[in-house]
Amino acid sequence: MSGPLAERVPAVVALGGGHGLAASLRALRRVTSDLTAIVTVADDGGSSGRLREQFDILPPGDLRMALAALCGDDRDGRLWADVLQSRFGGEGPLAGHAIGNLLIAGIWQRLGDAVSGLDMVARLLDVQGRVLPMASVPLLIEADVVGRDAAHPDAVSVVRGQAHVAKTPGVQEVRLVPASPPACPESVEAVRHADYIVLGPGSWFTSVLVHLLVPEMAEAVVTTSARRILTMNLAPADETQGFSPSHHLEVLAEHAPGLRLDTIVCDAAYVDQDPQFRRQAAALGAEVVSAPLRVLDGSPSHDVNRLASVYSDVIGH
Amino acid sequence: MSGPLAERVPAVVALGGGHGLAASLRALRRVTSDLTAIVTVADDGGSSGRLREQFDILPPGDLRMALAALCGDDRDGRLWADVLQSRFGGEGPLAGHAIGNLLIAGIWQRLGDAVSGLDMVARLLDVQGRVLPMASVPLLIEADVVGRDAAHPDAVSVVRGQAHVAKTPGVQEVRLVPASPPACPESVEAVRHADYIVLGPGSWFTSVLVHLLVPEMAEAVVTTSARRILTMNLAPADETQGFSPSHHLEVLAEHAPGLRLDTIVCDAAYVDQDPQFRRQAAALGAEVVSAPLRVLDGSPSHDVNRLASVYSDVIGH
Repeated sequence: MSGPLAERVPAVVALGGGHGLAASLRALRRVTSDLTAIVTVADDGGSSGRLREQFDILPPGDLRMALAALCGDDRDGRLWADVLQSRFGGEGPLAGHAIGNLLIAGIWQRLGDAVSGLDMVARLLDVQGRVLPMASVPLLIEADVVGRDAAHPDAVSVVRGQAHVAKTPGVQEVRLVPASPPACPESVEAVRHADYIVLGPGSWFTSVLVHLLVPEMAEAVVTTSARRILTMNLAPADETQGFSPSHHLEVLAEHAPGLRLDTIVCDAAYVDQDPQFRRQAAALGAEVVSAPLRVLDGSPSHDVNRLASVYSDVIGH
Repeated sequence: MSGPLAERVPAVVALGGGHGLAASLRALRRVTSDLTAIVTVADDGGSSGRLREQFDILPPGDLRMALAALCGDDRDGRLWADVLQSRFGGEGPLAGHAIGNLLIAGIWQRLGDAVSGLDMVARLLDVQGRVLPMASVPLLIEADVVGRDAAHPDAVSVVRGQAHVAKTPGVQEVRLVPASPPACPESVEAVRHADYIVLGPGSWFTSVLVHLLVPEMAEAVVTTSARRILTMNLAPADETQGFSPSHHLEVLAEHAPGLRLDTIVCDAAYVDQDPQFRRQAAALGAEVVSAPLRVLDGSPSHDVNRLASVYSDVIGH
């Protein structure tokens, strides 16, 4: 619609990685058509790990999942999402590679620029929104972990690589290698000009917090005039085993000094078990919006319709 | 257009492989919107050879080139054609693979059916026409060759594999392994229902004649009510070194008993050197349409505009 009565579509930027970001994007694209995904580039496992090693490129896997999540709901869009995500089987050198990873890597080889390449894929696939990397260089995640040595339960050891860290209980703190990587300029600009930014859900250290370890990105997130929404997970994962909901907020605050939040979107059944949660949320400046968000089969996945309904209330378009 | 005054668009089927078929398709799609490419599936070299070996699939390379030739002339079509054709560089396991080959192979793995997979690629890329394989199984080409032994210049030796045969002078006859492969049923149907079929240009034995070695396809080509057009090459290639234009027609006739032609499209400068050519063409029932068809830089490539102009005269739409 245009004309004086048309409401401006809110610019929404979602930061994350993996399945959590994909769920958030599928919900957010029902709320706005001005949607940008900013995606972690620290994956070092599987198809992405092999491609980044072979070609010295950003790991494409999380970017591919975001592109698939933003494919249209029409028949072609669903087909493309399916094709992007499907993987070669068998035993040979292509086994395990997602088709979308190869498409992105091939287009990057041809264009030599990550953002132009992602924009081209998005255009060719008629993706509804923009997908950007959080940093301009491939990154490694390193974590301080306790509890790995039964004889010395408080001893701190270092675990390297997103694929390992994401499966490791007892993570205390994560770092990036290199330590202060250059942010992707287009991503920083998107955060600065957003009306809303959405952090999470996703692997807490390796997909959510990691964005705040890129200095220019952390500064943009802290200083943007956008309203800041944090979407909680539905349960702890390996890397946050034993963490209460409020402890998730504590480690977020520790990794991002100065961060204030406007809204925390969370699953009622999960956060209501934790008497500290609302106090910790208030300390970050956030209003808590809780609702049943799980899929009905009981698995720890966000139901896209329920999440979209909450986002719609919060973003109010 | 519809209504009583609308002319029916002619159904044109082009049979071939490689660069020759691609040139023909680029010209034919300016003449008709009802265009089907039937593509050889005997390639055993390079990216296609590795993929057919790894996954026991049809070699995708010639199919990919046909799809790229049928991508639209708009910006997205040109981008897709470019992406399909571009290859991974470097040294690793992906080096040399065309992106389009990986896309086709991946979609085939997912769907398990070659024709459905090609139709899906064509749909996703908004390809103008249909691309089909000539046979339902991957094939090998075997050739009887003379002149390989300087001491016994008439001795016949056997050369195996399209990649080798296409680079071998002295080819006398080609065979397929397996000898009587199943044709692709959709391809046979397309030939039966065509208004025009176009054979060539292309590597004479390995991309053109080879279609006539698939029994059901040869029968369809010989018996269809479509008008049969043969487009000559502009010069002999390795496998036809020393062949005159009329000798090209002779070996075609030897490999396809009963074949009659309606029109032979050829480059004036090439065929006019050969006093036997028009007699040989007449023996096959064909009218000769000759015109300057080369690109202006002198390389042995068909100029797409000139070829389209001749096709337009012959197909008369």
